[in-house]
Amino acid sequence: MADFDGLPIRDELKSFEPYGAPQLDVPFLLNVNENPYPPSEATVADITASVAEAARGLNRYPDREFLDLRADLAAYLGRESGAHLVAEQVWAANGSNEVMLHLLQAFGGPGRTALSFAPTYSMYPEYARDTNTGWVVGRRSHDFTLDPSKALAAISRHRPSVVLLASPNNPTGTALPIDLVEAVAARTKAIGAVLVVDEAYAEFRRAGTPSAVTLLPAYGNLAVARTMSKAFALAGGRVGYLAASKQLVDALRIVRLPYHLSAVTQAVARAALRHSDELLSRVDQLRVERDETVEWLRAQGLRAVDSDANFVLFGTFADRHAVWQSLLDDGVLIRETGPDGWLRVSIGTGAEMAAFRGSLEKVLKTEVGRTL
Amino acid sequence: MADFDGLPIRDELKSFEPYGAPQLDVPFLLNVNENPYPPSEATVADITASVAEAARGLNRYPDREFLDLRADLAAYLGRESGAHLVAEQVWAANGSNEVMLHLLQAFGGPGRTALSFAPTYSMYPEYARDTNTGWVVGRRSHDFTLDPSKALAAISRHRPSVVLLASPNNPTGTALPIDLVEAVAARTKAIGAVLVVDEAYAEFRRAGTPSAVTLLPAYGNLAVARTMSKAFALAGGRVGYLAASKQLVDALRIVRLPYHLSAVTQAVARAALRHSDELLSRVDQLRVERDETVEWLRAQGLRAVDSDANFVLFGTFADRHAVWQSLLDDGVLIRETGPDGWLRVSIGTGAEMAAFRGSLEKVLKTEVGRTL
Repeated sequence: MADFDGLPIRDELKSFEPYGAPQLDVPFLLNVNENPYPPSEATVADITASVAEAARGLNRYPDREFLDLRADLAAYLGRESGAHLVAEQVWAANGSNEVMLHLLQAFGGPGRTALSFAPTYSMYPEYARDTNTGWVVGRRSHDFTLDPSKALAAISRHRPSVVLLASPNNPTGTALPIDLVEAVAARTKAIGAVLVVDEAYAEFRRAGTPSAVTLLPAYGNLAVARTMSKAFALAGGRVGYLAASKQLVDALRIVRLPYHLSAVTQAVARAALRHSDELLSRVDQLRVERDETVEWLRAQGLRAVDSDANFVLFGTFADRHAVWQSLLDDGVLIRETGPDGWLRVSIGTGAEMAAFRGSLEKVLKTEVGRTL
Repeated sequence: MADFDGLPIRDELKSFEPYGAPQLDVPFLLNVNENPYPPSEATVADITASVAEAARGLNRYPDREFLDLRADLAAYLGRESGAHLVAEQVWAANGSNEVMLHLLQAFGGPGRTALSFAPTYSMYPEYARDTNTGWVVGRRSHDFTLDPSKALAAISRHRPSVVLLASPNNPTGTALPIDLVEAVAARTKAIGAVLVVDEAYAEFRRAGTPSAVTLLPAYGNLAVARTMSKAFALAGGRVGYLAASKQLVDALRIVRLPYHLSAVTQAVARAALRHSDELLSRVDQLRVERDETVEWLRAQGLRAVDSDANFVLFGTFADRHAVWQSLLDDGVLIRETGPDGWLRVSIGTGAEMAAFRGSLEKVLKTEVGRTL
């Protein structure tokens, strides 16, 4: 625990370390679900030219409503999901975590509760803590799917003001069936709550899984969060966004800090969106690599969860930390996360996955790789 | 009031409109204290080259601790204020308003109170509201200075966990004497509170006014907030920062959202800092223009508050809104803010100030310009 030397830091923060996976300098970074493919030179050139133009006006505040970017995001999301959206239904911020913060500032807060179903994204309770929102978790099934009747019962029991569903889920990779999402949208609507479907990894989902964006016309209480960090290979650019009803977006406009999205961020995001075809072609490669990784892991006698994301949860190990460390000793950084015994590997390039397989194969032949 | 159609928006937000001055497209923008001088072509070129380099790695998350930028800011602030600072004493975020949010998340929150002295920056109560922090205001004197004994008495009476002092103050332009700031730093330290001195406009202060940064070695409970929006002409880049003790900064590292500062923002800020001499030379011009504006206003028989910032509060008008509208009709956008009867004009280029004077001169000859 840090020493705060008499400062009035809030009690509930004192025992925390700043969130984040280790940022280590090793050859194979497969720990934070980044896209391994950097932007092409054409994309870099477009980003650079756009920023040069923006830079000439940086003495002025940015467009506070950023409707041009919101229109571009609406158009992209419409193409991707088959839904029709207008700019005023889209919101964006510095990473989807700021989008989540805005949601909980508007609809959570003191005296209210947010509900999700574990195992799920480890930042959710931090967003709740940051906004003084109560935090309740139900459980997913043993295979990490969500039982509809249990989900609805938990909502009725806890009466949350916000329900968070990750689909595909992190760290398990599990996508939720659209009829389950719709049942939760209906129940939350009935009790006056907001449903947030976190689709950070949606572009990686397998064919035939509709996006929750298609439910927006029927559910004004639904927000579908996305990010440019993963499929768009823009983790360093920090652009998260969501689609929802105009009324829901209007509530977020009240709690956002003015000018939260810089002119440079707006320019970078718009440039990247102009190259969405190139960027998304990498997604197809990654999906193939992911499915092969699942098969390979199972061929080694391991458990590997079906994944609709750009990572795979696998195990289960008697001592997962020792396995994680052995891989790291070979320069392969994966993530020690999820339920006990499991590890998560992000899908990298073919060469990166070969390094991962080589290292894990070696570990599995030793006592360290013992499974449960 | 907006219609939120059954959404569970928090009651305290329902009556609010999103914050922000009107963003109007008129020839003379003198309303939001922007720096009228765009970056030079040399600065634009450096920003562009830096972003091009960053763009090649945008598929990766940014450096979460951004110690290179923090070291550059520490070095700049040391040069500017004559203090010695290390990187770990500096914090930055997307605009100084996000810095303020981090401060109130860590040290304010439910059951706690933040205190400031009005008239002051209109965003402070919004930061308190965003973090569910109680909000109490004492009063400045009629000349907008702060009486030390009243300030200390208010602190003893309200026992805030955070005290906010703007110096130079917005919208009045008033700088606080360093001995007053030190007295408040000592009193807040004694009661276990944090003192935030908001020096957003510090580079514009008149000679002989020390920065509160010089008090940091003695007061671990002091945070001095700055911004690159004003003196650095980087409002569109959204970079606010602060200097404090390492312990205080460590508390902010707990509440910040991970990766809150994009790789692009870090690159832009570092490039601008490399051009600080050029950017700050514009500050000298603006200070001259400001002092001339104060003199000119007084020569018209108006009241104008002594200013250590890049704006001037003047008046007092029987109908300030009518004066504001008359100027806007001439394409001159200033700000209707501060106590009743006063208006605030940002200091622009010589040409912009000539347009302001021309328009105001005309108004003063009419019934609309009647003073109180």
